[in-house]
Amino acid sequence: MPFELKKVLVTGGAGYIGSHVVYTLIKTGQYKVISIDNHHNSLPASLSRVSALALSELKSSLNRDPTESEVESTKIDAHTADLTSSSSVNQIFSLYGQGGIWGVVHIAAFKAVGESTQIPLTYYANNVSATLSLLQVMTQWGCRRIVYSSSATVYGTPPEIPIKETTRREPESPYGKTKVACEWMIEDLCTSTMDGKSVPFQAISLRYFNPAGAHPSGLVGEDPKGRPGNLLPLLAHIAVGRIGNGDPANEKSILKVFGDDYPTVDGTCVRDYLHVLDLAGALDEEGKLNERVFKSRTDIVGGKDRRPGDAKFKAYNLGKGIGVSVLEIVEAMKKATGFQFRTEVIGRRAGDVPYLIAEPTLAQTELGFSAPRTLDVMCADLWRWQKANPQGYDA
Amino acid sequence: MPFELKKVLVTGGAGYIGSHVVYTLIKTGQYKVISIDNHHNSLPASLSRVSALALSELKSSLNRDPTESEVESTKIDAHTADLTSSSSVNQIFSLYGQGGIWGVVHIAAFKAVGESTQIPLTYYANNVSATLSLLQVMTQWGCRRIVYSSSATVYGTPPEIPIKETTRREPESPYGKTKVACEWMIEDLCTSTMDGKSVPFQAISLRYFNPAGAHPSGLVGEDPKGRPGNLLPLLAHIAVGRIGNGDPANEKSILKVFGDDYPTVDGTCVRDYLHVLDLAGALDEEGKLNERVFKSRTDIVGGKDRRPGDAKFKAYNLGKGIGVSVLEIVEAMKKATGFQFRTEVIGRRAGDVPYLIAEPTLAQTELGFSAPRTLDVMCADLWRWQKANPQGYDA
Repeated sequence: MPFELKKVLVTGGAGYIGSHVVYTLIKTGQYKVISIDNHHNSLPASLSRVSALALSELKSSLNRDPTESEVESTKIDAHTADLTSSSSVNQIFSLYGQGGIWGVVHIAAFKAVGESTQIPLTYYANNVSATLSLLQVMTQWGCRRIVYSSSATVYGTPPEIPIKETTRREPESPYGKTKVACEWMIEDLCTSTMDGKSVPFQAISLRYFNPAGAHPSGLVGEDPKGRPGNLLPLLAHIAVGRIGNGDPANEKSILKVFGDDYPTVDGTCVRDYLHVLDLAGALDEEGKLNERVFKSRTDIVGGKDRRPGDAKFKAYNLGKGIGVSVLEIVEAMKKATGFQFRTEVIGRRAGDVPYLIAEPTLAQTELGFSAPRTLDVMCADLWRWQKANPQGYDA
Repeated sequence: MPFELKKVLVTGGAGYIGSHVVYTLIKTGQYKVISIDNHHNSLPASLSRVSALALSELKSSLNRDPTESEVESTKIDAHTADLTSSSSVNQIFSLYGQGGIWGVVHIAAFKAVGESTQIPLTYYANNVSATLSLLQVMTQWGCRRIVYSSSATVYGTPPEIPIKETTRREPESPYGKTKVACEWMIEDLCTSTMDGKSVPFQAISLRYFNPAGAHPSGLVGEDPKGRPGNLLPLLAHIAVGRIGNGDPANEKSILKVFGDDYPTVDGTCVRDYLHVLDLAGALDEEGKLNERVFKSRTDIVGGKDRRPGDAKFKAYNLGKGIGVSVLEIVEAMKKATGFQFRTEVIGRRAGDVPYLIAEPTLAQTELGFSAPRTLDVMCADLWRWQKANPQGYDA
């Protein structure tokens, strides 16, 4: 490979989504991945595993020894730093020099809706101020490409299902508001560089619905600290015995279901789950980050089709466009794990809506995104990871 | 006066709105005003003038010498500091100790809509990050009352005129978005303290329409750096000869009117102007800050009427509820100044809407707000200030 690897910085690279994104970027052979993570909700081991996995897969795919550049592309420059510290981030960019970092995939964020209502200022600091400071440092070092990790929460309670990207943003939690504020900042920055004088800043925002599953090797997966806030990792922790001692009859093993009287297939809430590797694939399964994500944006801005008001910023929903209910998930996890989950229906939870389903056509058309992995695959991959790593990376 | 003056911090205290708010607070005799200003768009002279004016008015209102506490209440603790520097703000709070600062009126912000589209990150830093850091420092020092200076721009293009506070917020400029983000942060902070364990944080947001005029003494007024971005100060600068040399025929004296084909009384845009002292009066003409603004909020939160979902945060429109057109303003300024303004109609400006008029009933009912001063009074007061201070405070 005679070309130079493009340096891509992934923030929150050691986290659940981050580690799968890093893996996917490495697999293209086009990027040198740099990670910044403060390990608030992750461990450095995830990136060591990703790196080793990528190298091992590389070796077994070749009939020859890998080149130095190929080996290099599997190594990750992992920095432990907090994005709220502008000087730390600046120092890391300075290591690579002016224009050294080609693009940023910004994933790092606090992400628990409930917690965000309790410590909102911490969420604004970690999500909004940190993103602002990252954008300022990027500008300073001539880095002008960013993929932002947004969320379906920007829509709040959507007026229509499935949810299109043009749906008005009416976030209901502090967490959701931080995601909208970041989209605003990034979009406004892009627009400000469309004055014909500046070097254009290019950005896309990916609004994730419900990422799930893990790498099929069982080496990399979701490792939440404390009791999982999300349904699938919670079920995995119950099945593996971290909660309720592996006894289906144990009080702690019983899954509380928030309401079964919603107007859905079985009365429980319906969400749009997609495999975390399908999500990561939107970024770059076959070099899309370069070929499609940013290139298409350049075309819009510089090309003849550019109209006043066209922003260089564009948001995409990432979901399967298919809803599954809480009870369907429990059934799928029963099948994957063999564990006889028991459920107890309790009252509805404030803020829950019956349906949250993406309309993913835009990402399919413009980014070549697809999410072929089924719910059963998500559950099987999750369980392979959890079984092999009952205590997560801590083992 | 046997009571201790309550310490109120006004951010942006030396600015146009800030100086009139400081004056109004001092006049109640209930507060010791502390100001933080970075003098980005203001001069320290405004506060010296406010202080001298308040003392002189105090003396002439008494048949005796003012008491030490009365004199003290007219003096302002003016700090030059930048709100984006968390450590500076922290240091200022530390001067007054835990619980020392009773409440904050947060006015400091960058405020030019056009400029915000050019340097959005600077606007997010100065408006959003600075407000976040202020809230964090307030929490740390046990200060839990804030009046936030918001703006009618939070509504973007309103679906209905007059605009009620319940209108959805759809800001269109980076400036407007920073105002919404700050309202979100403040509201979320208030809500997070309603858990029955925390000391409640109380806040109101005042959404100003178009503040205008000056103190009738001609000693305190608006002193924009550079060419005024707003219509009334621009006309004042033309009339006083700072623009166009006082010659109505001079090219520079000719006012460009953006469109005269709107569906309004004379085809020009209609806005809701209110006198800056009426605006400041909403805060505290007769001790309302204490008696009404925060007291009413406490009632809502702690009292028997509290319902789940009630926030301690509430937003109020401040406007007259009466619209005046660009040409009506020009006529009023002709009358006030005697200057024969000439106008030239040019094309519509992107983003302008025909009508922006407040529905101010909520502030009238709940805050005792009223805005009796007429457009003619605004123009006369503005002109008295501008004539006496052709170069502003710089003279």
